[in-house]
Amino acid sequence: MNQPPAADELVFYVNGNKIVEKNADPEVMLLSYLRKKLRLTGTKYGCGGGGCGSCTVMVSTMHPISKKIQHYPVTACLLPICSLNNMAVTTTEGIGNSARLHPVQERIAKAHGSQCGFCTPGMVMSMYALLRNYPEPTTSQIMDALSGNICRCTGYRPILDGCKTFSKGCCLNNEVNEGPQKKKCCLDRRDEENDLPELKNFPLLFNEKEFLPLDKTQELIFPPDLQLALAGKQRMKVFQGERVTWYSPSTLKELLELRTKYPEAPLVMGNTNIGLQTNLHGVFHPVMISPINVHDLYTVAPDDAGITIGSAVTLAQLKTILSESVHKLPKHKTKTFQALIQQLRTLAGEQIRSMATLGGHIASKLAISDLNPVLAAAGAQLNLISKGSQRRLQLNKSFFDEAVSSGISPNEVLLSVFIPFTEKEEFVSAFRQAQRERNAYAIVNAGMRVRFGEGTDMIQDMDIFYGGIGSTTLSAKNTSQALIGRHWNEEMLQEACRLALEEISITPSAPGGMVEYKRTMTISFFFKFFLQVLQNRNKTVTLSGGATEYLSSIKDFDTEIPKTLQIFQEIDTKQPARDPVGRPIVHLSGIKQATGEAVYVDDMPPVDQELFIAFATSTRAHAKILSIDETEARQVPGVVDIIRAKDVPGKNAVDGQGTLFSEETVECVGQIICAVVADTSDHARRAATKIKIAYEDIEPAIITIEDAIKYKSFYEPFKGIKHGNAEEAFKTADHILEGEVHICGQEQFYMETNSLIVIPKGEENEFDIYVSTQDISTSQFAVAAVLGVPSNRIMSRVKRVGGAFGGKVTKPAIFASAAAVAAQKTKRPIRCVLERGEDMLITAGRHPVSGKYKVGCMNDGKIVAADVSFYTNAGCTIDESFLVLVVALVKMDSAYNFPNLNCRAIACKTNLPSNTAFRGFGFPQTGLVTETIMDAIAIKCRLPSHKVIQ
Amino acid sequence: MNQPPAADELVFYVNGNKIVEKNADPEVMLLSYLRKKLRLTGTKYGCGGGGCGSCTVMVSTMHPISKKIQHYPVTACLLPICSLNNMAVTTTEGIGNSARLHPVQERIAKAHGSQCGFCTPGMVMSMYALLRNYPEPTTSQIMDALSGNICRCTGYRPILDGCKTFSKGCCLNNEVNEGPQKKKCCLDRRDEENDLPELKNFPLLFNEKEFLPLDKTQELIFPPDLQLALAGKQRMKVFQGERVTWYSPSTLKELLELRTKYPEAPLVMGNTNIGLQTNLHGVFHPVMISPINVHDLYTVAPDDAGITIGSAVTLAQLKTILSESVHKLPKHKTKTFQALIQQLRTLAGEQIRSMATLGGHIASKLAISDLNPVLAAAGAQLNLISKGSQRRLQLNKSFFDEAVSSGISPNEVLLSVFIPFTEKEEFVSAFRQAQRERNAYAIVNAGMRVRFGEGTDMIQDMDIFYGGIGSTTLSAKNTSQALIGRHWNEEMLQEACRLALEEISITPSAPGGMVEYKRTMTISFFFKFFLQVLQNRNKTVTLSGGATEYLSSIKDFDTEIPKTLQIFQEIDTKQPARDPVGRPIVHLSGIKQATGEAVYVDDMPPVDQELFIAFATSTRAHAKILSIDETEARQVPGVVDIIRAKDVPGKNAVDGQGTLFSEETVECVGQIICAVVADTSDHARRAATKIKIAYEDIEPAIITIEDAIKYKSFYEPFKGIKHGNAEEAFKTADHILEGEVHICGQEQFYMETNSLIVIPKGEENEFDIYVSTQDISTSQFAVAAVLGVPSNRIMSRVKRVGGAFGGKVTKPAIFASAAAVAAQKTKRPIRCVLERGEDMLITAGRHPVSGKYKVGCMNDGKIVAADVSFYTNAGCTIDESFLVLVVALVKMDSAYNFPNLNCRAIACKTNLPSNTAFRGFGFPQTGLVTETIMDAIAIKCRLPSHKVIQ
Repeated sequence: MNQPPAADELVFYVNGNKIVEKNADPEVMLLSYLRKKLRLTGTKYGCGGGGCGSCTVMVSTMHPISKKIQHYPVTACLLPICSLNNMAVTTTEGIGNSARLHPVQERIAKAHGSQCGFCTPGMVMSMYALLRNYPEPTTSQIMDALSGNICRCTGYRPILDGCKTFSKGCCLNNEVNEGPQKKKCCLDRRDEENDLPELKNFPLLFNEKEFLPLDKTQELIFPPDLQLALAGKQRMKVFQGERVTWYSPSTLKELLELRTKYPEAPLVMGNTNIGLQTNLHGVFHPVMISPINVHDLYTVAPDDAGITIGSAVTLAQLKTILSESVHKLPKHKTKTFQALIQQLRTLAGEQIRSMATLGGHIASKLAISDLNPVLAAAGAQLNLISKGSQRRLQLNKSFFDEAVSSGISPNEVLLSVFIPFTEKEEFVSAFRQAQRERNAYAIVNAGMRVRFGEGTDMIQDMDIFYGGIGSTTLSAKNTSQALIGRHWNEEMLQEACRLALEEISITPSAPGGMVEYKRTMTISFFFKFFLQVLQNRNKTVTLSGGATEYLSSIKDFDTEIPKTLQIFQEIDTKQPARDPVGRPIVHLSGIKQATGEAVYVDDMPPVDQELFIAFATSTRAHAKILSIDETEARQVPGVVDIIRAKDVPGKNAVDGQGTLFSEETVECVGQIICAVVADTSDHARRAATKIKIAYEDIEPAIITIEDAIKYKSFYEPFKGIKHGNAEEAFKTADHILEGEVHICGQEQFYMETNSLIVIPKGEENEFDIYVSTQDISTSQFAVAAVLGVPSNRIMSRVKRVGGAFGGKVTKPAIFASAAAVAAQKTKRPIRCVLERGEDMLITAGRHPVSGKYKVGCMNDGKIVAADVSFYTNAGCTIDESFLVLVVALVKMDSAYNFPNLNCRAIACKTNLPSNTAFRGFGFPQTGLVTETIMDAIAIKCRLPSHKVIQ
Repeated sequence: MNQPPAADELVFYVNGNKIVEKNADPEVMLLSYLRKKLRLTGTKYGCGGGGCGSCTVMVSTMHPISKKIQHYPVTACLLPICSLNNMAVTTTEGIGNSARLHPVQERIAKAHGSQCGFCTPGMVMSMYALLRNYPEPTTSQIMDALSGNICRCTGYRPILDGCKTFSKGCCLNNEVNEGPQKKKCCLDRRDEENDLPELKNFPLLFNEKEFLPLDKTQELIFPPDLQLALAGKQRMKVFQGERVTWYSPSTLKELLELRTKYPEAPLVMGNTNIGLQTNLHGVFHPVMISPINVHDLYTVAPDDAGITIGSAVTLAQLKTILSESVHKLPKHKTKTFQALIQQLRTLAGEQIRSMATLGGHIASKLAISDLNPVLAAAGAQLNLISKGSQRRLQLNKSFFDEAVSSGISPNEVLLSVFIPFTEKEEFVSAFRQAQRERNAYAIVNAGMRVRFGEGTDMIQDMDIFYGGIGSTTLSAKNTSQALIGRHWNEEMLQEACRLALEEISITPSAPGGMVEYKRTMTISFFFKFFLQVLQNRNKTVTLSGGATEYLSSIKDFDTEIPKTLQIFQEIDTKQPARDPVGRPIVHLSGIKQATGEAVYVDDMPPVDQELFIAFATSTRAHAKILSIDETEARQVPGVVDIIRAKDVPGKNAVDGQGTLFSEETVECVGQIICAVVADTSDHARRAATKIKIAYEDIEPAIITIEDAIKYKSFYEPFKGIKHGNAEEAFKTADHILEGEVHICGQEQFYMETNSLIVIPKGEENEFDIYVSTQDISTSQFAVAAVLGVPSNRIMSRVKRVGGAFGGKVTKPAIFASAAAVAAQKTKRPIRCVLERGEDMLITAGRHPVSGKYKVGCMNDGKIVAADVSFYTNAGCTIDESFLVLVVALVKMDSAYNFPNLNCRAIACKTNLPSNTAFRGFGFPQTGLVTETIMDAIAIKCRLPSHKVIQ
């Protein structure tokens, strides 16, 4: 192959409009292209890692072999525009707007499914993509379709309510007739079904009669010129960006040549793995190869022994292919397929499943892979090809083992995967345990296979693979080998557990922690496998001690749509129709939020000459800064300036948030040291990572409440309440109970990360600040203070906020202040939109609280005295921690009556980012402590909790 | 010469920063480059024709021959950037800012010389350029330096006060000492000088002690790399724009070759003439030749017979050269030079004189040329050169006569001009009459020369040339010829006047009108010449009838700085120092206005995706629109849309202003028919001129109040006041006086033309409008009405206004409404900044008023009855005419007491743009009528006016 030709034009469609991009940069993702280049800001940035679904759009393309048009949801944040050649993209703006609503937009909005609205366009597009394929989806399909979309306001119920109106599962209002026989829609008949006659008159949540019908003929068709282009002969495309070259070969031959020429270059299909590395971890590949047009990778070839599936087949397609096979083939042959389908149902969200390919999934060898343990256990094989040779590779221990170069060679391409059928006496199971059922990485997962000799319960062959434990999929090969020849009984079970625990060692410092939990899971899964196999072989399951309750562990989780009910207050019939109080009024901006017309801070169009800011933050919890070296950062293209403490014209601090730009010491990881301003956010971020900061650790680094207690690191004075004489009263008590309860912190995860724009007005140090905040004046005053100007020079504006939950009360002031210093120095507008990780790193969240109590009560449960200390982990400054403490005291003293109380609230100064307000603000933590006391008394006095007498 | 090389880089400096422009477009003027490209918005657009000085900046360059650095003021609106290669530009931002003020900025601001502030940066830069050349200028130099700058607020006095502090003419505070002997600065001693002892304590206008000293060492030097570049060998530069190629040859040879190759291409030096044509009249030249680097054109060669001056010598340099000659040479030899100096002093402003060249001035043959009549009369000759030949051409009748091809051939270049010395008995005079002394085109001007026989008063030779009358300079050749041999006496004078009137015929339809006045001037000038010659020959001037008062006509005008006095009220010594009432407080924005930091509407940075609007307006006073053809307009590059009546979603009208976009009929010239929106204002304007509108005139077209009375075209009902019984009272009067008085309209000429930006907010039809208006809600409501949205959707903002004077009360609503319709249709921000001519065409101004009165009085001056009709020319809609009428009535009825009054105010509906508010708003007009009545009575009754008893 010769020198690549000059960069090609990238052609794709967005919302029916043809886009011809002459300078397609492989580093540009569809999300930023939509938002910044095409000004389609309905698609939102939520996490940048395909995890939240805010950026969901629909991609339409033609299947390379079947030539059928396919529509599927994708997360635009992970999709390089270069991979979209000859495809069509549809965003929420493309399906409707407030003047001409699409039924999906309408129903989600009118069913009260949009609150802050930041997730809504993504929800809309996930649902829309489903409807393009299944106009009358089942509720289960709806659940699957929305599984990759996170909402932090609604609790999902109203979103599902809106979506269910498309479902065959709903009466679709067909039963509703006029006149006295009139029936409500099934969705509004739940009061009857729920047997709550007193609620018969509660207002309808929404009136489905108003809803627009779904009319497939109104949808955008796949552009005919793309069809024509795709039907013709393809040729290799090359796209050249600022730093990266992208090759999209059109034949296997070209692919193999590229693979030889650029052995380091990753093969990129859905970019769900490489994209995470580049977006979130700054991994850089100067050359990328996208084999999306290589037809050979799309094979689906069943044979007598199993099925061969092309590596470019997506996980969503895989699920369909396997499901079809399960339908068609004898059940016993498809046990592996069923196990894979089980994993595929919960693996990430529908968007990721639609982008990620089988080949990419396997080749990445990720520790959290849900499929690899199953495929490996089931004996899958990889068909590999390189220039001039081809081979088959078993997916086994040595494949995963990094120490052995037994994987895919750099010049090889994974052509397809052979998944064998199971035999009659062969059983394959899949297991996973995650923090939530769907769209969450597994903490531990596993694939297990056992084959028995015909008619016996003797193990003939066995394989066990675990995920989530090491750096890749782990094989319990020794355990399996040792069990061959054993009978499938409790002794074998005991032995297996012992062996597995021995073989699968987890070091205490394993990433993700939870070592004990993971160890337990490895044997729990085997236990479950043991039971399942027994059950599948129709054996009576008897366990020693007759603990039949364990059998429940074999049951599947319920993945039905949860039954829910929202009750609005009953409206007095005399209440005038125009009086909205108590009625379920649709969010005033609901429609606009669904259509993407609602303008959030970062949706505001670029301001002339604006720059982007990125922060260099501390990587040490407590350290002296020895030096800050800007040299390398300043060499990054587009960098305009670096903002440091010396540039702050006023006070280099934000009230309650400590130092703005730290130059001497740092007191937590994530503390801002300096900031880069550059022409693009990418350049700013790239430069920020290149600022070299040298530290000298300062001891101690106080992290936990326990540390703080040890080092007596508190914010004084303590707040406290004292009633009566607790010390004396304790002497009269029948029982004295002492205990301790701890509740951890929590991340707000507002869908919209901290976002703001600071615009210098060019006169008298006047600034307009547009901040996503719950408290506009805090930002205003903070900016005025750092700039050293009267606060009337700062015009602070908030139009809407994409979620906040307390996290945007004080924290936005930090970023506004930093951006304002930059704006003042450069005399240019500064846009600041935090990345998700950055936001979580810097802003902290709910305060962890430890409650230590001593309570005295009588035998009848009467409390006579209590001594309680609430310790809260405030972090390196006190922010609003005092509020949490006050809430704690109020809770102790008002919800219950303690006749003799000695109670104190202690804010611990730790080397963590300062925690802040969060929904409920102190109540969840302190309530737990108080209720724990009540429970302890109840247990001690053998009373129901509510009979404890304070 | 072969194909021009690829476009060159244009290199110049702005405020010490090197600018390398790779795409220099010859059509781009420095003003828009500064404002739009460099975002230096301190330099303002006022007229686009070099006439107002708002865009004054300083250019520094090296003289091609003397190699001296030269600094001179220019009007950036006329200066193509392509002519700036290797030059340095200084704007007000370059000399200081509010943090580090320049003394010029400070003194003008603190001397109260900045009110609306729009002219201030231009004033600052005119003064700054003067100070770079003359750090201690005379007051006369200051007057000259500021003569090209118009201010509409201050009346100039405070500006001059500030500037005079730099002058040697001022005591410069040197006399001021501390202690009891303390003296005020001369500027504040005028109370004493003016002999107004009661005002001794009035507050100081400003405290000169505060003023920064002028420190020449602090000024930007001429960039050394440009010096180096200019010292080296030059080569031809070629700049290629969107439509125009610019050649800047470096040698005479290249110039002559270009001249042969592109005979149609204009030679451009200062662009004061071509620039007017292109900027204001849409003249287009695809090729332009700038011989600025051809050294041969800069010759200054005195010899025995006169002086040869290169055609590239600017008028400012010419003045200096001539002045030096006048100093050095015997007075009688330089009479032509003196006459030219006299004309040069008042010709345009210092900026234009610094840009315009002698060659360009002559070759343009403009009718209003002040120099050509003098040069022609004085016998100047042109040295012309073409490829291979050279010739000398007399500047005579045939040169100017368009019918004879006796001028400069297309392939010739005007190399230099020979101006002969005068002989002892030869006299040359120059005359001009204009609406104001300086910076105004002459209505009529003249150059006259007579030579007598040695020792006699017999005319040996004579030449008379007039300007301002025809299409070019006119020769009174027959008159001159006829007078040769006559004696210089009254008979000759009579004969000369008769002949001149005969020869210089002015058709009644001559452009500019004023036919009678011009005829009178032609002979008045000769009369003046007659007297001047007599006086210069030391002859006793005796005229028939001994009318010695005519001798005053020989005197020069007083061009001294006018003596002025502004009195602030005396402040009670008990008034607290912090109480500002009555004190001469400096304008809060004065400093920022002087430094260019003050942000006017068009100084706001470009808004993302903004478009520019330009209007297609009626060219008929009263007509039916037959058709509107957009075809050609839509083909202009950058055109996005054309906005017409059908695009108005709400009401297609602005309250009191009539139809917004006319589609059926037009009722005045300048009525908006449609608008073009495009990516640049140039494209929008170009396209607007290409909209083809076909009309059918509707009779009558009512223009004047007389027309309206004739056609009974009035807005009804009339307003009137009736007291007593005027009819009966008239019968008792000693005298009945009847009369009529007329006062014309007037243009506001606010320095900032109507400017606004409409920004759609992307949601719910919300718009931000930034309007330069005196009445923000009128625009707000008008926009809401045309868009058909509630007015709370329209956020109307005004920061500051660059002058208004009543003209920006209602009129901005028209433009805001039109722009809002465009913004709503295109969903993009729309910027609207009217050109001066457009603004004057569409907005109209003060109402013309005719007062017809009949008044009855007694012999003692007592008024018994009055019957008065005020007719006001309201235009095609009534705008605020009603206010003018009401004011008229109030004036009649309150300022004076008419015992029996019958008075009415009649608004005439005419086919003129609707007149509007203007300072004084009706008082000047109606006051004149009322005072005319008083004067008439006073005269009739032989009383002083103030003794007339009402």
